Amino acid sequence: MSKIITISRQYASGGSEIGRRVAKLLGIPYYDRTIIDITAKESGFSPEYIEKIEQSATASLLYNLSVGGIYCQPLSDQLFVAQCNVIRALADNGPCIIVGRCADYVLRKDYDCFNVFIRSDDKFRIDRIVEFDKVSEQEALNIIRQKDKARRKHYKYYTDSDWGNVTNYDLSLNTAVFGFDKAAQIIADAVSCNK
Amino acid sequence: MSKIITISRQYASGGSEIGRRVAKLLGIPYYDRTIIDITAKESGFSPEYIEKIEQSATASLLYNLSVGGIYCQPLSDQLFVAQCNVIRALADNGPCIIVGRCADYVLRKDYDCFNVFIRSDDKFRIDRIVEFDKVSEQEALNIIRQKDKARRKHYKYYTDSDWGNVTNYDLSLNTAVFGFDKAAQIIADAVSCNK
Repeated sequence: MSKIITISRQYASGGSEIGRRVAKLLGIPYYDRTIIDITAKESGFSPEYIEKIEQSATASLLYNLSVGGIYCQPLSDQLFVAQCNVIRALADNGPCIIVGRCADYVLRKDYDCFNVFIRSDDKFRIDRIVEFDKVSEQEALNIIRQKDKARRKHYKYYTDSDWGNVTNYDLSLNTAVFGFDKAAQIIADAVSCNK
Repeated sequence: MSKIITISRQYASGGSEIGRRVAKLLGIPYYDRTIIDITAKESGFSPEYIEKIEQSATASLLYNLSVGGIYCQPLSDQLFVAQCNVIRALADNGPCIIVGRCADYVLRKDYDCFNVFIRSDDKFRIDRIVEFDKVSEQEALNIIRQKDKARRKHYKYYTDSDWGNVTNYDLSLNTAVFGFDKAAQIIADAVSCNK
C-alpha cells in the first residue's frame, strides 16, 4: 500500500474521528493539528498564531497588505507554502492520513493519493456541536455555516478549485447515514483493495 | 427497506451499469430510459423527441420561446413536469433505483432517498467511449466535456443547485478506483444497513 489518504471535511461531520479510526485500522500515522505544530516549530510562529492566520487567510486583502506590504508575499501565503512543505515531507515518509489543509491539492501531482470528503446532514452536525460546545441549536447552525464558508474560501483561494466538488474526491460519505465506524471501514477497505 | 436509490452520474462513468447491478443485488426495479418511455406514452410525444428536448432544455431561451410562445410554459418545462410525475409514481410503488433526471431533487421532500453520485477519472471514461463508440481519444474527451456540461446546466436550471456538489449526495464514488462490482456492493450494503 503506497497511498496517502487525504480527508477533507465539513465542520463537525466527524472527519477527524474517521481519520483516526482509518489510521488505526491500517496501522499508519494520522496527521491533523500536528501539521500546524510542525509548521509552527519550523517557522518560529506559535501554533495559535498560525491557526488564526490560516482562518483569516482570505478574509481581508487589506489585512494581508498591512502584514506583508504591497511588494511582499502576504504572511498567510508564506505560511501556506511552509505548510505545503510539511505536508510533502510527511507524505514522503510513506502511507498516512492527512486531514484538511488542502492536502488533496498539495499532493495531487507527485503522490499516489486516495482523496476522501466527509460530510453530514445539518441535524447530525448541530447535535454534535450542541453536545460538545454547549451552545443553542441556532448558534450551532451559525458556527457550521461560518466554518464551512471559511473552508470553502480558503480552498478556493489556494487551489482555484471548488471545495466539496465530487470531481476532486475518490469517495464522499454522509456520516449521518454511514456512521463513523462504517465510514472508516469503507475507506480502509478501498485503500487495501487498491494496493 | 423503504429507500429509493437515486444515481446521478458523470457521462461514461458507469452509473447505469452500477445501477443495474445494485438492482440485481437488492432485487428491486431499475429505471433509467424507462422514465422517458413512460413520459412519451403519457404525453403523446416520441421518446426520441423527449430526449432531444431534454438535452436542449436550457440551451436556448429563444428556442423555448419559439416553441412555447412568450405567455406559455416552455415545452421543455412541461415535459420536465410530466417526467417528475412519472418519477414520483414509480417511487410510490416502493424501493427502486432511478438513474439521472434530477430524481434526487424531485423526490427530496416526500421520499426516503439514498442519493449517489458516480464519477470517474477522464482516462477511464475516455477508454470506455473509445471502445464503445470507436472514436478518437480527443473526440471522446470532447464528448465527455459536452455531455457533463449539459447535465450540469440541466440540473442547475431545474433545481437551482449544483450538480456534483457533495452536499446533495449520501455517497459519491470514483469508479476508476472502485470498479463497478465493488461500487455496487458498497451502495447495496449501505442501503441494507439503513433499512
